[in-house]
Amino acid sequence: MYSELSLADIVRENRRGRGDMVALVDGDERITYAEFDERTDRLANALTSEGVLPGDRVLWIGANSHRVFELLVAAGKVGAILCPANWRQSADELRFVIDDLQPKLIVSEPKIVGDLHDSLGDDRIPWVRCSDDSDDEFQRWSASFPSTPAPSSESIHAEDPVLLLYTAAFDGRPNGALISHRALISHSLVIAVQRQIKEGFVFLDSGPLFHIGTWMFAVATFVCGGTNVVLSQFDPRRACELIERERCQGAMLFPAMIDQLVAANGDDRYDLSSLHFGPAGSTWNHMITLDRSPWGRSNAGYGQTEVGGMLTYHALGIDGLGTHGRSSPLMQVRIVDTDGRDVSTGEVGEIATRGMHLFNGYFNRPDLNAARFRDGWYHTGDLGRRESDGTVSFVGPKLRMIKSGGENIYPAEVERALLGHPDVDSAAVIGRPDSTWGQSVVAIVVRNASASVTEQELIAHVRNQVASYKKPKSVVFVEAIPRRGFVPDYDLLDIQHGGGGYPGSDPTPITTAATSEMTR
Amino acid sequence: MYSELSLADIVRENRRGRGDMVALVDGDERITYAEFDERTDRLANALTSEGVLPGDRVLWIGANSHRVFELLVAAGKVGAILCPANWRQSADELRFVIDDLQPKLIVSEPKIVGDLHDSLGDDRIPWVRCSDDSDDEFQRWSASFPSTPAPSSESIHAEDPVLLLYTAAFDGRPNGALISHRALISHSLVIAVQRQIKEGFVFLDSGPLFHIGTWMFAVATFVCGGTNVVLSQFDPRRACELIERERCQGAMLFPAMIDQLVAANGDDRYDLSSLHFGPAGSTWNHMITLDRSPWGRSNAGYGQTEVGGMLTYHALGIDGLGTHGRSSPLMQVRIVDTDGRDVSTGEVGEIATRGMHLFNGYFNRPDLNAARFRDGWYHTGDLGRRESDGTVSFVGPKLRMIKSGGENIYPAEVERALLGHPDVDSAAVIGRPDSTWGQSVVAIVVRNASASVTEQELIAHVRNQVASYKKPKSVVFVEAIPRRGFVPDYDLLDIQHGGGGYPGSDPTPITTAATSEMTR
Repeated sequence: MYSELSLADIVRENRRGRGDMVALVDGDERITYAEFDERTDRLANALTSEGVLPGDRVLWIGANSHRVFELLVAAGKVGAILCPANWRQSADELRFVIDDLQPKLIVSEPKIVGDLHDSLGDDRIPWVRCSDDSDDEFQRWSASFPSTPAPSSESIHAEDPVLLLYTAAFDGRPNGALISHRALISHSLVIAVQRQIKEGFVFLDSGPLFHIGTWMFAVATFVCGGTNVVLSQFDPRRACELIERERCQGAMLFPAMIDQLVAANGDDRYDLSSLHFGPAGSTWNHMITLDRSPWGRSNAGYGQTEVGGMLTYHALGIDGLGTHGRSSPLMQVRIVDTDGRDVSTGEVGEIATRGMHLFNGYFNRPDLNAARFRDGWYHTGDLGRRESDGTVSFVGPKLRMIKSGGENIYPAEVERALLGHPDVDSAAVIGRPDSTWGQSVVAIVVRNASASVTEQELIAHVRNQVASYKKPKSVVFVEAIPRRGFVPDYDLLDIQHGGGGYPGSDPTPITTAATSEMTR
Repeated sequence: MYSELSLADIVRENRRGRGDMVALVDGDERITYAEFDERTDRLANALTSEGVLPGDRVLWIGANSHRVFELLVAAGKVGAILCPANWRQSADELRFVIDDLQPKLIVSEPKIVGDLHDSLGDDRIPWVRCSDDSDDEFQRWSASFPSTPAPSSESIHAEDPVLLLYTAAFDGRPNGALISHRALISHSLVIAVQRQIKEGFVFLDSGPLFHIGTWMFAVATFVCGGTNVVLSQFDPRRACELIERERCQGAMLFPAMIDQLVAANGDDRYDLSSLHFGPAGSTWNHMITLDRSPWGRSNAGYGQTEVGGMLTYHALGIDGLGTHGRSSPLMQVRIVDTDGRDVSTGEVGEIATRGMHLFNGYFNRPDLNAARFRDGWYHTGDLGRRESDGTVSFVGPKLRMIKSGGENIYPAEVERALLGHPDVDSAAVIGRPDSTWGQSVVAIVVRNASASVTEQELIAHVRNQVASYKKPKSVVFVEAIPRRGFVPDYDLLDIQHGGGGYPGSDPTPITTAATSEMTR
């Protein structure tokens, strides 16, 4: 196909058009696009020699490094898939990743993760260790291969997956999202429009490269012919040094990281004026070049690893009704009910999507893929609402659904209404079996210290925010809500507070007819 | 495929996300995205009722109109292809288009082209006439169909062609370039990065909609959720009125059109300050908002209908050595010799390309397609040069090649060198059979009035610009160079000045062995 474009093609074209420009900065290493193409050719041949074939996985366990970029493009050149693992995980979690991924090769950084090979090593899997001294096994290994283009490079398809990222484990275990060349490249152009990424753009990879949030900027910087500056792990002083030295225009920065940069540069020792960023307090605003565009005012939006990054941009509709703006111009978004029909404007439903930067599905999860990819649309497992001006509000994850009086009630929507009350610190909503309604809504609430809001006041508050049938029947005040990761531990809450009877779960017998209906 | 995206999908998503925003302005008509989606659903059903099937062509013969946009999207909804013809062509030329295209339906504007149906009408082809009064046959026809989505709308593929534009007839007859949804949409994002096209962008379609140069901005405006303001034909006063009234930020303007706008607004009657554009003299610069970005400084580049618009952007490498900058981030560019091998930096060769916004090929031209699509690359038929900094210079069309002493010599390169001499008004280069060298280079030159440059001076001038073997052996001074359209009539020049013996043409016998080699 003459319209194919892969990450390898991007690097080769950058070699032709700007071969002397710097693709990657990592410590004292400055790698031009010509060198990057050559290195990844050598590495692709090295992968081939280890038996890595199209569709095979290569696992990286280490911090940010120029090697992650090289492995990604080299994997792309042979049709393989790079998984950069979250190296902050426990040994047990990493063991799960290795068992799940069945990689053909593992590359690790002992300086970051210790000698995992001794504890996790499976001798059937080749393992290459990286070090920053002259005894770098990775360097010796890859440099020993020729830089001739890998034989299979002409048969790579833009639809092939090239990056695999494990996503948040809402359902108990992480799932590996397979992201194609096509998704990474097309998403790059969308973010380039928003963030103004062009030739000469310099981006500081200050976020982790096991997260799509960093990759989406890093790949866009490559696609547009810019320079990625690699920060091994976030360190505010080191980040300031690199921003000043490399004249970085962009960086992956969350509010807490900005606070650390402001503190590290309290004496204005570093010139951060090259950085274009949104406002975050007057000290910060004076250190940088303030971005007053809609994106600068709010770089928020709704995204998922599964959509290659951002699905909606608050900057597209920043003054609109929705909290999360409008969709990427390369994606379609619908808000659907459990039967896949569009819900009405203002109603909460599941966010479904399709388009050019959608992922290919989860690795080795046929059941989950069948559940998520239906009727031509990918179902995100997240809840949203279309506002009357067309903008979208993200409501929360669709972890489970309560059914009361035949109506669907999503806990996230009720929780959001509860959290809007000034006396509420945190909240979780469960369904309790109810012989009349099927289930009834129960709110588990932690009040702020010294707050005195009552059960009836909270029920009235929720009723003012959402449809009446969604309001809690009762409120239980507790000291703390048990969590699994970011989200409430609903199973434990059910046990503690008598929840159950969810649609699709083991039914709580209400009538014999209903039971036979539900188990048929 | 969950990653598919068509123009219909773009319009539907804009309906969901910004249904009340204006998609199109044409005279007093203001068509929102919701209305645009509904109208094109009706029109799609109307097309289906006329027997228009996937792959069929619909021909538009008329000036710019909201109907062209509606026909494009409606054609896309049923898998058909819209061809907006150059309505300035003669009746014979339009007859060629109809014969070549074999459209299933013709829509024309009698107010622009007269009643073509009487002179060209083929009663086997349904013909719909548009008018701006209450007796609009197009309106009556399309409005009589329901707005239910066309049945086949789910089976449209992003790779399907949707727009067919006839391209410059360098080889004697125009060829219809088939442009897919994928090419139009992906090109849109690239131009959006350069031109800063986002939600709320308002574009004045002041160029003709039978030309890719207008379409590339018009489609980008749609894709990004902006408003297209349709100008039926270019009229400077009307353009000023619309820019002021609609607060247009962009427009399709060539230097001659800018001069007319400046003249029409000599009394500063119109407020053109919404328009962001590059500099063009101080009067113009004060009327508009000056765009000082690289794109504002030079919106030039190298493009072709066949690449969906622009292949290289001068703004990407504006201070570089090449006259035409670097490639679109979604395309690859190589400069190749006749065997498809990369020529050296600084050498002239054919521009070959592939990537996301490449066209699908020419309609009904199997031989031309086979000649142009080879070894995984589309050969543009244009000559270019890769400079030492990676930037590209476009040299000229590769109409023919001279072979002298075993070396390849492209007339366009020698002509460009000749035109660099201040005494030269125009020039064409041919090859004359030569018993020693195969061919020798002959320059046909028109001098400027009262200029006196001699044959030997011109030969020396060229020798300073290009390799010595490319310099003319002789120069013939003439009063005028015969042309076919934009380019010299080389066949006539050969007859007039003894040209011949081109590689691949009927060979001029040099030795028996060479002849048998060339005809084998």
